[in-house]
Amino acid sequence: MVKFNPIVAALPDTVPFVAPEETERRAGRGFRARLGANEGNFGPSPQAIEAMQRAARDEAWKYCDPTAHDLRVALAAKLGIAPGEVIAGPGIDGLLGLIVRIFSDVGDTIVTSLGAYPTFNFHVSAHGRTLHPVPYAGAHEDLDALADAARTQRAAIIYVSNPDNPMGTWWDASAITRFCDTVPHECLIVLDEAYGETAPPGTLPSTDTSRPNLIRLRTFSKAYGLAGLRCGYAFGHDSLITPFHRVRDHFGVNVMAQAAALAALGAHDWLAEMAATIADGRERIAAIAEENGLTSVASATNFVALDCGGDGAFANHVLQAMMRAGVFVRKPMTPGLDHHIRVSVGRKEELDVLEEVLPAALAAAAERSA
Amino acid sequence: MVKFNPIVAALPDTVPFVAPEETERRAGRGFRARLGANEGNFGPSPQAIEAMQRAARDEAWKYCDPTAHDLRVALAAKLGIAPGEVIAGPGIDGLLGLIVRIFSDVGDTIVTSLGAYPTFNFHVSAHGRTLHPVPYAGAHEDLDALADAARTQRAAIIYVSNPDNPMGTWWDASAITRFCDTVPHECLIVLDEAYGETAPPGTLPSTDTSRPNLIRLRTFSKAYGLAGLRCGYAFGHDSLITPFHRVRDHFGVNVMAQAAALAALGAHDWLAEMAATIADGRERIAAIAEENGLTSVASATNFVALDCGGDGAFANHVLQAMMRAGVFVRKPMTPGLDHHIRVSVGRKEELDVLEEVLPAALAAAAERSA
Repeated sequence: MVKFNPIVAALPDTVPFVAPEETERRAGRGFRARLGANEGNFGPSPQAIEAMQRAARDEAWKYCDPTAHDLRVALAAKLGIAPGEVIAGPGIDGLLGLIVRIFSDVGDTIVTSLGAYPTFNFHVSAHGRTLHPVPYAGAHEDLDALADAARTQRAAIIYVSNPDNPMGTWWDASAITRFCDTVPHECLIVLDEAYGETAPPGTLPSTDTSRPNLIRLRTFSKAYGLAGLRCGYAFGHDSLITPFHRVRDHFGVNVMAQAAALAALGAHDWLAEMAATIADGRERIAAIAEENGLTSVASATNFVALDCGGDGAFANHVLQAMMRAGVFVRKPMTPGLDHHIRVSVGRKEELDVLEEVLPAALAAAAERSA
Repeated sequence: MVKFNPIVAALPDTVPFVAPEETERRAGRGFRARLGANEGNFGPSPQAIEAMQRAARDEAWKYCDPTAHDLRVALAAKLGIAPGEVIAGPGIDGLLGLIVRIFSDVGDTIVTSLGAYPTFNFHVSAHGRTLHPVPYAGAHEDLDALADAARTQRAAIIYVSNPDNPMGTWWDASAITRFCDTVPHECLIVLDEAYGETAPPGTLPSTDTSRPNLIRLRTFSKAYGLAGLRCGYAFGHDSLITPFHRVRDHFGVNVMAQAAALAALGAHDWLAEMAATIADGRERIAAIAEENGLTSVASATNFVALDCGGDGAFANHVLQAMMRAGVFVRKPMTPGLDHHIRVSVGRKEELDVLEEVLPAALAAAAERSA
């Protein structure tokens, strides 16, 4: 019997998410609407597609640039920071794993919101760290309680998303800055801004990198429509960025991801149009909810949380009925949030399917709960 | 000051390789021939290119299948094993990092050959394990001495490549099997077969997965011509494969890599032709060496190690002169191997450049050593 690392040996056989492809294989048929993973259902920009197709022909055979030089330079220019203050990684997911590894040790406590991003929790457990979850205040992450927990738990890391997933809520930049001021200097703040591109003006703090305990994360998976490519980036004080290079996979961002992200960054008009399209989609989802007597949570993201009007079990029945009807959606599972389902902005024809399916799903749930 | 993991804090700021792109940026001009990273300079199969171009258009917006289901099923069919006995990962590099993490603990000893694959060593150090290097026997990895070291050092892991990098030598399957029989059962054998597709028949043992301490690694980066895509795979006893899922990045192999690898697997005729093309290239490199009075090491890979006929310093002068002349090559740095330079099989026009440049490089090195 070979040796297993004791932390890994003690882990359960879980994954952060069951893939929609797995559900489709089990059901023997595809979804009619893919509204569960907050993807960019409108696809990437034509510029990104062209860059990938060119790279497929001309660049695939070469190892990718391990420094992601051109992409980092373009990101730094966009953010108004130095190239050494930003690092590209295999999605925010991959960067989160590295952050846990670099900025904490076995047994350390890490603070997050109860019901926040499961993949972060997955990495925390997989590295043998201890998670300290803080309940939401209503539909918002509770910044004061989170900062308190960082203090009282002497946390190594605190994770906050703004805008938030799974609720879609947000704090304005001044609230986030106040929060950062109150977290102890010894605690690394991880600010996940995956949905930053779809948030209203005033949500994202300035990109100032002087704070020595703040790493911010962004991605090409959401508004940019490149979830399949796995490209995210972290930026902050250079003392926090340099250590990534000591442990990261040398060729961590593949050639297609680098090409696509670089081209996507250049497509300014396209991104602005996409943000408007996503905002329209949020309104339509809210309107569909209202037609069905449901309330929705105001959202700064590419999804909307719908209050199904009952308890968590009721919302789960709604979700199951929608899945059976061919609509892939997800829902928060945490008490206090679990009476919602979470619906991503999809293409017009996908939201048509939502509109068609939701009344029957609600009726089916009412019947099961009766 | 935030907390740094003590292992990471103690690491030097090194990378496994300086990228050729970095060298090109410093020099202000591109290489004329890219013969230093053992890539598939002929490019991937047309089927793989077409699959990537289609995925760029249709699939980029979706998160990739986190289980890489279709690719695993195809790999399992090719290998004659069960899908649960194979896992795809972000290149062999990414899988090596996971292997160190899963199958050893801080302070454990890990055995490899002195001068073998640096990225493996990078991961060993980055996880706080201790490397025990075993010298080559001539141009071959010393299987008996490696197995002895696994025993005497009570190693958690032993790493062997067959065919070997950087020398290109190989052992036949029966020697590898004997080696596996002599390594203690408690030690995980990592058999890196990155160059398996270019090796002569009889080099690779059967794909039997019954040995409970053997993981084998293969890649799409070499003969398949997809280095930029980052797709490799590990196969072996299912008790060794299952734990990867507990810690790996959920979306670790991106959508383009999955699409390209799946299509590449189907292009049987193309792969057979490529293996023949690579064998021809090896012969041409050996012939060029001979024309210049150099001997070459017989190779089962897509590169050839050339004995420059002097010491390590002389070979380094040859390498530097070739780099200045626009030919990207690398060389082993370990005493006993370091009188070689390592030249990848490139396209005809690239080997023409090699032929053109080598005589002057040898003359320049002779002058500097005089």
